[in-house]
Formats: sequence, C-alpha cells, structure tokens
Amino acid sequence: MAQRLIVIGGNAAGMAAASQARRRRDRADLEIVAFERGHFTSYSSCGIPYWISGTVSGPEELVARDPETFRRRFDIDVRMRHEVVAIDLDRREVTARDLVGGGEVRERFDELVYAAGAVPLRPAWAQTDVEGVFGMQTLDDGAALRDWLESDPAPRRAVVVGGGYIGVEMAEALLLRGLSVTLVEQADQPMSTVDGDMAELVVEAMRDLGVHIRTGLSVSGLEERDGRVRGVVTGEGTIPTDVVVLGLGVRPNTDLAADAGLPLGPSGAVRVDRRMRVPDTPGVWAAGDCVECLHRVSGMPVHVPLGTHANKQGRVAGINIGGGYATFTGVIGTAVTKVCDLEVGRTGLRETDARAAGFDFVSVVAESTSRAGYYPGTRPMTVKLIAERPSGRLLGAQIVGWSEAAKRIDGLAVALWNGMTVDEMTALDLGYAPPYAPVWDPVLIAARKAVDALHDGAG
Amino acid sequence: MAQRLIVIGGNAAGMAAASQARRRRDRADLEIVAFERGHFTSYSSCGIPYWISGTVSGPEELVARDPETFRRRFDIDVRMRHEVVAIDLDRREVTARDLVGGGEVRERFDELVYAAGAVPLRPAWAQTDVEGVFGMQTLDDGAALRDWLESDPAPRRAVVVGGGYIGVEMAEALLLRGLSVTLVEQADQPMSTVDGDMAELVVEAMRDLGVHIRTGLSVSGLEERDGRVRGVVTGEGTIPTDVVVLGLGVRPNTDLAADAGLPLGPSGAVRVDRRMRVPDTPGVWAAGDCVECLHRVSGMPVHVPLGTHANKQGRVAGINIGGGYATFTGVIGTAVTKVCDLEVGRTGLRETDARAAGFDFVSVVAESTSRAGYYPGTRPMTVKLIAERPSGRLLGAQIVGWSEAAKRIDGLAVALWNGMTVDEMTALDLGYAPPYAPVWDPVLIAARKAVDALHDGAG
Repeated sequence: MAQRLIVIGGNAAGMAAASQARRRRDRADLEIVAFERGHFTSYSSCGIPYWISGTVSGPEELVARDPETFRRRFDIDVRMRHEVVAIDLDRREVTARDLVGGGEVRERFDELVYAAGAVPLRPAWAQTDVEGVFGMQTLDDGAALRDWLESDPAPRRAVVVGGGYIGVEMAEALLLRGLSVTLVEQADQPMSTVDGDMAELVVEAMRDLGVHIRTGLSVSGLEERDGRVRGVVTGEGTIPTDVVVLGLGVRPNTDLAADAGLPLGPSGAVRVDRRMRVPDTPGVWAAGDCVECLHRVSGMPVHVPLGTHANKQGRVAGINIGGGYATFTGVIGTAVTKVCDLEVGRTGLRETDARAAGFDFVSVVAESTSRAGYYPGTRPMTVKLIAERPSGRLLGAQIVGWSEAAKRIDGLAVALWNGMTVDEMTALDLGYAPPYAPVWDPVLIAARKAVDALHDGAG
Repeated sequence: MAQRLIVIGGNAAGMAAASQARRRRDRADLEIVAFERGHFTSYSSCGIPYWISGTVSGPEELVARDPETFRRRFDIDVRMRHEVVAIDLDRREVTARDLVGGGEVRERFDELVYAAGAVPLRPAWAQTDVEGVFGMQTLDDGAALRDWLESDPAPRRAVVVGGGYIGVEMAEALLLRGLSVTLVEQADQPMSTVDGDMAELVVEAMRDLGVHIRTGLSVSGLEERDGRVRGVVTGEGTIPTDVVVLGLGVRPNTDLAADAGLPLGPSGAVRVDRRMRVPDTPGVWAAGDCVECLHRVSGMPVHVPLGTHANKQGRVAGINIGGGYATFTGVIGTAVTKVCDLEVGRTGLRETDARAAGFDFVSVVAESTSRAGYYPGTRPMTVKLIAERPSGRLLGAQIVGWSEAAKRIDGLAVALWNGMTVDEMTALDLGYAPPYAPVWDPVLIAARKAVDALHDGAG
C-alpha cells in the first residue's frame, strides 16, 4: 500500500517539497495531499508590490504553478481553500476545515511537511474590523488590497506603517498607482535592513520620489467612518488616509505547530535539522517561512522569510522524502530590492548584527561608479564592507546604487559564503569591461579600503 | 642618496607601480623616472572601441591620469615619447631614445619595472607600408584609426580580421560609425573566447546587427591603390575595403626583455614570482600585458593581457618596491564584453581548455531569464557550467544574455576562485527579488543541472 504525504501550505516550500518527492516516488509508492487555505498555489509573494503598482499584471502572472498543474502533471491531490486546524502526531492525522463548503476532513499521513508560511505582524491597534487595513503576505492579501484600491470612491491617500522591504516596496507601489503616500516608521529611519548610513541614501531617494516619511513615530490607533479607515492616530496627531498597509514584518505561522508539540527555536520559528526534518519527530518535515535556519556568519538560528530560501528548503525536504539526500546549510542574509531606480543589495551582518554577535570589526564605505567613469550611463555606487578585526574576514556587505548595483551583491555573497578575507578579495578576478565596471570594480575598491582600515586600526 | 626606480611603459601597470611606490617612499628616498614611447599615460585600452564608435569621446576621456598629474601629484619624472631601447643589467642602466627630439639618454636604476605591454599580432601580409591597416592596442593606435576614419574621402567599408574580443568590439564600433563591416575569421566561428555553443549566440546577434561574418577564411594579402588599402585578399576572393583592423590578438612585448636576458616563460611572456619580481634578477620587476601569470584552475602559466590584471599587478609591484608586502596570486580568466545589447561573460576554463588541462568534466547549458518571468524587461539568459567529474568542482562558466547577464559572472568567478563544487553552489544565498532574478537565479538553475549531469554520468 502506498505511503501518504500530507503537505500543509500550498506555496513555494510546500509545493517544492511535494514536486520533488513526486519526482522520486510515483503514486503507487506515495500519495500526496496538499492543503492550502488560500486561492493560489506556488506564487511569488515578492511580486505582490509590483502587481499592486501595475508593473505586472496579476494574480495569475504571479503563480508559478496552479493547482490544476500540480494535479495533472504531478499527481498531487491539491485541496484549495482547506485550512489545516489540527495535527495529531500520535494518530498520524491532520484535520482540515473546508473554508468554502464547510465541514472538516481528517487525513492520515506517513510523512508530513509543515509549510504554513508566515503571517504579517499586526499590532493591537490593527486588530480591528475596520476596513481598509491590509497585511501583505499572501496573494490573497494582495488581491484584497487591489480590490480596495479599485473600490469607489477610489482611495487617494495611503499610509504604510513600517519601513522594511515590504513597507518600502509597498510605498513605491502605491505611489506609482498615483496615491499620496506617507511612510510611518517607529525608528529613526526606515530601511533598517541596511545600516543607517546606507539607509540614508534610500530615504533620500524615497523623499525625492515624493513619499512622505515620518520617523520616530508610533501608531496608536485608527480613525474610522462607516467602518472604513479614515486616519492613523500617532503621537503627533492623526494622519488622514484611505488605506493602511502594514509593513511591520511577519512572524512564522507556528500556532498549529506549537499546538501539535513541534519544537520551536529561539527565533520563534519551527526548528529543523539540515535535511529539513523536525527534530525528534519522525516523519515530520518543515520548510519555508515558518522555519528557522542557521545564519552561517553569526552561527545563530534566524528566521528569514524569503522565497528563495523557501524554494530551496522545500526542494531539500522533497528530495529527502523521495529517498534522496540533500541538506540546507543555512543562509547569509542576502537580499536585494529597489526603490524606483535606486538599487539596494545586502548580505551577511549589518554593524548592529555584528556587534550583537560579539564580533570586533571595521567597516568602510567606498564611493565608486557602476561603469568606467567615461562610459555613458555610469552612475554612483556606494559599497559598504564590514570585516572582522583582526582576521579581515568579511562579515557583511551592502551596496546602494543607481544601476547595476543590487546584483553585484552576489559576488560579495559568494565571498562571504566562502569565508574570504578582504585582503584575499582584493585579488579577485571579476569581470571587467568599460560598459560594466571601472578597471577596479567597486567591490575591489571597497575591499582595498577595508584592508587599509584594518592596517590603520592595528598601527 | 636617493635610490632610483625606472619604469618602462607609462600605462596601467607601470604607472600603478610608480604611484604605489611613491605612496610609500618619498622623493628623498626614491627618484622615479617613467619612459613612455606614446603620447598618453595610464589609459583604458579597453575603452578604445567605444571611442572609435563615438560612444565615448576621446582620447582624454580614456586617460585616467595624464603625465602632468604624475609629475605634480606623484613627483614622478615622466618622459613621454621616449622609447627604451636597451636594458643593461650589469651596469644597471637603460638607454632611451627620444622619439621627438632625437638622440638617446642613459639612466641608471636601482629598481626597474618592466611594463612594456603587448603588441598586436601582425601576420606577414599585414607587415606593409600600405596605409589603412591598424592594430588596436594603444591609445595611439586608436588615434591613428580615428584620423583615418575621418580622412577624406571617408572610409565606407571595413574589414576586421580576427574575431576575439577586440575584433568583435571593433566590428560593432565600426558598424555604429556607419561603416559596412565584414569580420573575417580563420576558424569555424568567431568569439572563441567562449565555447562554440555559446559563441553561436553571439554570432547570431552580430549577424542581426548587420555584420558580415566570413568564417573558415584566411587572409593572404592586401590590395592597394596609391599606397592605401583597397581590399583584403582571401582564399575566396578579394573583399573590397577602405580600412583593415587587426583583431588577431596580441603578443607580450618582450623583445627588449629578451635582449636583456630576462627570463620568458612557456607562454612567451616575462616570468615573474608572486610579488612580481623577475626571478633571479635582483631589483627587476615586471607587470601588465608583458608578463605571464598563474591560471588558478589549470595550474598553468598563461598570458592574459587585461587592464584589470595590469592594474593589480602594477599595484603589487609598487607596494613591494615601496617596502610593503603584496602578492598577485593568479587569474581565473574572467572576462565580460557586449555586442550591442548582448552581454557575454566567462570565467575559468572553456571545454577546450579543460580538455587540454587533462580534466574529465561534464558541461551543461541552462536556459533561464534575467528577472522573474512575469517582471517587465525579463530577457533570456543562457548559463553554461563546466564541472570536474567526479568531484563536481566548478572549472568554468559562461553566460550570454540580453540584460543583467555579463556581471552575473562575478558570483561564478568567486565560486570558482574558492574551489566550490556545483553541489555546494546550489545552496548559495544569492540576491533575489523579482526585478533582479527568478526565485531560482539562472546561476543556481545551472548548478542544479550540473549536479544532475554528474549523477547521470555516474549512474
């Protein structure tokens, strides 16, 4: 008789696990059932801001594989609009609620993949029935916001609360849709995903675009009229608005896991081993935005919800369930984004992270250009490097620039992954041609500057 | 009494050495004299095609630092239009000819930097007084071609002989200037800097641009009228032309070095140790397009004339002459170029190189896109990886694509530099956001495909 794999969550991690398992084990060997509470499978959450802005059409465009494809090509029994509400590890079964038809079903499993994703952080003031307040995590969240923006009368003013990636990307998206946008940030500065000196460049660019940025400001409540949001109440008065988007980050969706007794780690996310097994829980796997993983630089467990990790982790789980061997060996915190034409890339530790992890370090900021200085279209590029003292080992890097900047982080990410020192990095053989780099690539210039800083510090 | 440093060649390597030495030793400690036979110091040879095309203005734009700057800011006695014609190692002096005023001078040295660069390969048929035939290596070469193109009657047809980087870039440049361009290549295909399957993509793009490409064709002579070139004689008839550009590569400029008894290596270029010292020749250093260096993947000495290496090598020599410590640890053959909007990057060994070096390997070609499939402006990208069998160690990589392709080679170059296996590479934490990459970056897709190929091969 066939074994049975149950997948909780039909997005990147869950469906990557399911498809990889199927590649290695056919239906006679492994039945696969996937429960998804939303309307979509395997979509790009990261693409939602670009759908909101109108840069890409959606939501179908954002779906890599729809339920029908999984059913037909992968022989996976995808149950849409089904929310798993309980996991019984002793009886080896899950209970799922049919959100459309009502009622519950129970399904037994031999193997279980927990891929319940993450949920947007929603402070007390946002836990309300007032309409027009949106978290941004799922494609359903995006669809709800799109509907709201297209409702009559059309919203003209938006407040984005929180200035991380999602907040910044949503601010741009709403601006591109023609709304007047205010970004409210509790800290001194939004874009804390990079250090303050680098974030300053992003903030300037956002202001130039016309985003109103209010910093050091906490939201305490909402104003409403007829059940619709009309304003955001802050310590400095009320900011009138027709829509509120929460950009306060996400938390791993672990309620169900905790109820079932799955172990959570220090980050609050589900613990997994390198093969994506939940420790001490035979036959149970977890992957994606609900799990924590090793940060290879700090050595600490971290929760980094990002599609690229979710895909890799799901694939690893699926290969292992399929009888193969694969490991997920951690992350180094690489991320890229853009604010209109301004590109931002980061990898490794920020100064604050490095300090928190106990490292002694130097940090340098090098100004350069994307192309040879004389080549048309050359634009400023700022590269920041953080290197351990005295070893010189790279701990982190950040890049901000107007073109060909974001993905330059990849070379730095691979250097970091391999534990290179900044001294070793000055020798790197990177691509050089006038349309693509100065004869000393910005990355090399920064590495040289870091070497100098290490020597000065020791002298 | 101050010591004396003589630098032969005032381009990237020589002047980087001079300036680095000056940073560490002042004039009272070290006099520096640099001889340059041409009209320019420290310029971008790689920028010449873009000057020819009119994309950048020149020649001043291409000069990073002019002689006056070296004199004033670095206290370096730069002697322009002086060609060193002899090195006497016993007497520790060089003889230089004044190409303008006539006559010769002798100058003693304590330290000598040999940075004489490279000279374009010029087959017997091109060793002629016929006007309108140009090698492309120095800014003076570029100036001569510019003058010719602007002469009256203006040349309308061009033949580029040889399809390496310079040939391909010059073909594009001449086309952009409005000439009808024929590229003559002796081999089956131009652009042999990448493997044939990848070169095919470049050739298609060049044909689409309107470059006439004639392959498998050797040039045997020139036709002339009134001392000006009128045609290129080949085995398949004469190709009429008003100008001939040689793109047959360069050879290290070693005549002077060989006369002086400096050791040449198997590549034909000057041998140096890791600190850029000429072995067994105290006080003599060499750097730039005239030296050979270690290819870190094949382990063989290679001659790779490229501005980025010249700068690094010159810097290393200068730091060491200045009393510091620096090494040049070799190259891995990274290079990028473009043909109009088509971008090409490579690093490490091609299939032919890998075979010649004795490696067993698999190679895979993966088709993907530069951005998320749904994101506007996404374009096809082809990534080829060559991995050692059975170890899986990356040996080489090539990328061809229409945008954001060339510099993606950097991540691969750093992976190669660090000896990563393709299996390890599938785990790399590269930058992901829809405007910059699919959720599986093209590099990761290729790595996965290479892993599969290794396993299939072993199965």
